[in-house]
Amino acid sequence: MRGFASDNYAGIHPEVLAAITAANDGTHAKAYGADPVTARMEALFREHFGEDARAYVMFNGTGANVTALRACCRPWEGVICADTAHVHVDEGGAPERMGGLKLLTTPTPDGKLTPADVARLTIRVGDEHAVQARVVTVTQPTELGTLYSLEELRALAEAAHARGLLLHVDGARLANAAVALGTGFRAFTTDAGVDVLTFGATKNGALGAEAVVFLTAGLDDGFLYLRKQSMQLASKGRFYAAQLAAQLDGDLWHRAAAQANAMAQRLAAGVAAIDGVRVTQAVQASAVFAILPPVAATQVMAAFPFYVWDEHTGEVRWMCSWDTTEAEVDGFVAAIAQAVAQAG
Amino acid sequence: MRGFASDNYAGIHPEVLAAITAANDGTHAKAYGADPVTARMEALFREHFGEDARAYVMFNGTGANVTALRACCRPWEGVICADTAHVHVDEGGAPERMGGLKLLTTPTPDGKLTPADVARLTIRVGDEHAVQARVVTVTQPTELGTLYSLEELRALAEAAHARGLLLHVDGARLANAAVALGTGFRAFTTDAGVDVLTFGATKNGALGAEAVVFLTAGLDDGFLYLRKQSMQLASKGRFYAAQLAAQLDGDLWHRAAAQANAMAQRLAAGVAAIDGVRVTQAVQASAVFAILPPVAATQVMAAFPFYVWDEHTGEVRWMCSWDTTEAEVDGFVAAIAQAVAQAG
Amino acid sequence: MRGFASDNYAGIHPEVLAAITAANDGTHAKAYGADPVTARMEALFREHFGEDARAYVMFNGTGANVTALRACCRPWEGVICADTAHVHVDEGGAPERMGGLKLLTTPTPDGKLTPADVARLTIRVGDEHAVQARVVTVTQPTELGTLYSLEELRALAEAAHARGLLLHVDGARLANAAVALGTGFRAFTTDAGVDVLTFGATKNGALGAEAVVFLTAGLDDGFLYLRKQSMQLASKGRFYAAQLAAQLDGDLWHRAAAQANAMAQRLAAGVAAIDGVRVTQAVQASAVFAILPPVAATQVMAAFPFYVWDEHTGEVRWMCSWDTTEAEVDGFVAAIAQAVAQAG
Amino acid sequence: MRGFASDNYAGIHPEVLAAITAANDGTHAKAYGADPVTARMEALFREHFGEDARAYVMFNGTGANVTALRACCRPWEGVICADTAHVHVDEGGAPERMGGLKLLTTPTPDGKLTPADVARLTIRVGDEHAVQARVVTVTQPTELGTLYSLEELRALAEAAHARGLLLHVDGARLANAAVALGTGFRAFTTDAGVDVLTFGATKNGALGAEAVVFLTAGLDDGFLYLRKQSMQLASKGRFYAAQLAAQLDGDLWHRAAAQANAMAQRLAAGVAAIDGVRVTQAVQASAVFAILPPVAATQVMAAFPFYVWDEHTGEVRWMCSWDTTEAEVDGFVAAIAQAVAQAG
Repeated sequence: MRGFASDNYAGIHPEVLAAITAANDGTHAKAYGADPVTARMEALFREHFGEDARAYVMFNGTGANVTALRACCRPWEGVICADTAHVHVDEGGAPERMGGLKLLTTPTPDGKLTPADVARLTIRVGDEHAVQARVVTVTQPTELGTLYSLEELRALAEAAHARGLLLHVDGARLANAAVALGTGFRAFTTDAGVDVLTFGATKNGALGAEAVVFLTAGLDDGFLYLRKQSMQLASKGRFYAAQLAAQLDGDLWHRAAAQANAMAQRLAAGVAAIDGVRVTQAVQASAVFAILPPVAATQVMAAFPFYVWDEHTGEVRWMCSWDTTEAEVDGFVAAIAQAVAQAG
Repeated sequence: MRGFASDNYAGIHPEVLAAITAANDGTHAKAYGADPVTARMEALFREHFGEDARAYVMFNGTGANVTALRACCRPWEGVICADTAHVHVDEGGAPERMGGLKLLTTPTPDGKLTPADVARLTIRVGDEHAVQARVVTVTQPTELGTLYSLEELRALAEAAHARGLLLHVDGARLANAAVALGTGFRAFTTDAGVDVLTFGATKNGALGAEAVVFLTAGLDDGFLYLRKQSMQLASKGRFYAAQLAAQLDGDLWHRAAAQANAMAQRLAAGVAAIDGVRVTQAVQASAVFAILPPVAATQVMAAFPFYVWDEHTGEVRWMCSWDTTEAEVDGFVAAIAQAVAQAG
Repeated sequence: MRGFASDNYAGIHPEVLAAITAANDGTHAKAYGADPVTARMEALFREHFGEDARAYVMFNGTGANVTALRACCRPWEGVICADTAHVHVDEGGAPERMGGLKLLTTPTPDGKLTPADVARLTIRVGDEHAVQARVVTVTQPTELGTLYSLEELRALAEAAHARGLLLHVDGARLANAAVALGTGFRAFTTDAGVDVLTFGATKNGALGAEAVVFLTAGLDDGFLYLRKQSMQLASKGRFYAAQLAAQLDGDLWHRAAAQANAMAQRLAAGVAAIDGVRVTQAVQASAVFAILPPVAATQVMAAFPFYVWDEHTGEVRWMCSWDTTEAEVDGFVAAIAQAVAQAG
Repeated sequence: MRGFASDNYAGIHPEVLAAITAANDGTHAKAYGADPVTARMEALFREHFGEDARAYVMFNGTGANVTALRACCRPWEGVICADTAHVHVDEGGAPERMGGLKLLTTPTPDGKLTPADVARLTIRVGDEHAVQARVVTVTQPTELGTLYSLEELRALAEAAHARGLLLHVDGARLANAAVALGTGFRAFTTDAGVDVLTFGATKNGALGAEAVVFLTAGLDDGFLYLRKQSMQLASKGRFYAAQLAAQLDGDLWHRAAAQANAMAQRLAAGVAAIDGVRVTQAVQASAVFAILPPVAATQVMAAFPFYVWDEHTGEVRWMCSWDTTEAEVDGFVAAIAQAVAQAG
């Protein structure tokens, strides 16, 4: 089975698996991250994000996001986010129940927060009855496949900092953003004023490894305790660090993400030509959102699995991954064209 | 570096790594556990634990223990455990802060709860001011390397069930217990009355994979939600299931654990002959606890890392793993003998 | 000082204070609610709400709401509410951090949820990544001073029950709703399909006493434990029960609320005649919402304190209480008229 | 009914009720503590505890204890206490579930922690797997009716501070301790090095009012938010503050507590003369603990309710209150003597 359901459906990139295998060299290594592979990974994060960057291995995106936000907030502080944010709609209530965090949400047309949103949601400062905004979290690229420009991120960081807030980036697909922006990681994170981020490797070819990366010095005070308590501490840490290191040591992160992004462009271009399919969001990373006749969607799903994104509008999401091929895209486009034609 | 610090210091068993590699077959697979490898793993757990067994992949032991206990307890219910239990002393407050669980603890001489402990800690039933005992958790083998016999487990299950409590087993090293008891898993879990357990594969040669296994039908109601919320849901589930399946499909679990257990026996026998070393617990699985002159301990640690278990008594823990060799044990014993002699 | 800032600014109704004094009869009484005054109060709730009603004394509205909702939800279940709900904007994050509850919010024009809202927010049923809607909470009268009709409440209960959800009413001012609807409590709660409610007495003349009232049998299973754990259990329970009983035994609840409602009508009528003041919500209970020139608002506040409701629009809230007099209303209207005229 | 079950069974001291009545003077007052009565109460706490004292009104002891401890601890920090502490055995799991707090407990012979206990329980500093001790909480007088001397408290404060820990006092009956010690409050709290305490008024004649009092400057940072979120913020705050002020303004606190203490001494002296009754703890405040033949205990309870303290040993607790009279004590002693004689 191959399809466009999720970049989580893809397997492990061979170079990542090779790195795991290499780390399994027959020696013993200190557990819980006190090993040389982890040290190497930490250095790679400093290379990519700047000398103050402090990276911590996490199991998954939910764990990374929630634990990062726990590190930012005192009990009465909350998190500004778009109402499409993964942290709001796809983390099973973990932010609230495991993190005790209130999310202060706003609708957006494209999954992107603006400085005006930050201003509007930072209210009742000093009022003990209201959760106090403390951190702004944005997803880059967003859950809708759109992208914040460098200018937009800088403006958000400024809007946040001006109010004493922090800026967190959920970078489950951060490499796809870097490729799309044509920059390294640092330009649109550290240098844009981001304070802390979730770095996702899993969707970009890892077996399962994410990192919380603190960019602002001091923010990670006590984070070792928080990670352990948040049930995100791996005992054989070297094999998770090896995955992250494999992506950052060389250009694997770029090659893998570039393939997914390019396939999304090809797919968007392909379906743009089909009468009856409407692409609903700018295609700026690895996802294509579209509305097509429901009967056509259902028919195509049988051969190429994908998800309905919005139960109410019938909008669907097509996600490309590091291993999506041109032939697959072309076959998928053809299948959509045929199904839509039959539905017409 | 090789040593006796922790079975978490060992790497991945080659057969486990081979299973991960095999699962990475170039196809896409549904994420979050809806894949054929996971289905196969679930079937293997049913083979080993009985037809009612329901296994859920988890990232690590803390996550497995806390999430399993969350599934057992309503908000006002608590957990009886030994005061040496991992869940009490080594999980960073996750049971309390992430699970909201109160632990009802008791000292024990050997890390093992008794039916009398269960009786003594099940008090104030119906008193709204007191957390109500709901589940008894035991570690098998214990954190002190000791073992519950089948009779002891059956008696605990009876004591628990008679009071309306459940019995949970923290089986971070469950294979070592099975080997030591000379039985399959089922005899001392399902058939002894255990309701739910944590099955650890990581210490027995996995990269990182545990399972919560419900043995009593119905107990796992809603557990998919709890796992996700507890930040323990892997997206590429097949690669975690592959690790567990590799251990249970065939006798890898037995071979790996048998090696660790045998090496612990060899080590215990070796140090028993050394004047100035006192083995402090029955050696029934893969750990040896001992007291030796602190200066000797410090000297040996330099070459063979291990941990001081008790800051107050100087008791140390020596842990064998699936890859510990006879030569390593012998070299370690010789080093201890020499250091103790010098200290004397 | 007297004003229109909040019905919490008013004191204790003399009849409530007399009831406290009467309960202080020199005897000892069992603590924690096992006393005759509490028994009498429980009977009064059954008289007003039906034989299945089970009332539990609570300290305050936040405690009552959060504990009631805790009783309704398993860890992965959430609460549908308007984005103006007190539970969402005025409880300091208690639902999230103390209750672990995710609120599923929607904007409304008038603070009132509709069956369509319930339908739209009950999505992704069975999807482990999404918090599952479990309870709909409405405030009656709403935080905007508007009122659900009996038909609207019945329709909400039907919409909720059809989806397996419960209906909770935050009745911080429930007596004002009953007066406005011209019914007893039962008609628009128990008989309309409400499952559980928060009954507020404090704003209606109590010193400080609220109740959680379960109307659907069985829902209060374990609630004694939850109340204690939620830090809402009063030791000298009789003096809290006495306050609630004082309101329900006879027509104090009605007299007190009717006065507040009538004064709100008088106030609304008075300001309706002032050019430059716009009443922004239907005046259906004891509150009047209006927009007037900010400079005028500020000037009036100096003599008659009140609150700005919306930092962005300048909308203000004027709240009448059980002790508001006609003369006060008239003086307030005159002051507003004068200030607006000066501002013009 | 009058008896020796609990000081919570007694009613409201007439002077406290008079103070509530006086505060209900027909005016409006700002809600949530921004009123003149609260300001007066805050000043009284400064008079009694020193200029840095910051007092916050709370509803009950559980709320006060848990919220005070929340203010002291970051998520990975825990609380050292005796295993008889109210916070451990009588708060329904609120510290764990509402506060996320792990309690680090130890048995004691008399309910009193020692510096050696603090030393023994402050272990694994810096180890991310272990909850880090942050605050020592002692109850004064203890749950067993015993008393810390000034020297003992000073030594505990020193032991705590030397390790970077704070000292919290659960003073549910703090006035009884002051009377027993023959000092004002300050001598054995602020001046002994206590950092924060729970001040109980309810058991000493209030309707229901407690306070968290911070003695170390800065510790109350953000506490207004924490109190609100912990569901402990009273809207009509003046009527709670009035109760606390009534006790502290003048010598009501002393008179009420002195009566309870004196009656406990009289009771202890009375039963000391009865063959078959053994007083099990030093009687240093308002409680007497004793063991007597169970059949005698049951017989006496019918006329004078009291509680069995220990299900296993049959130890009972007799509690005197501010309104206990000499005649009641004498009647009670006579009843015990008769029942024990019959049981003999």
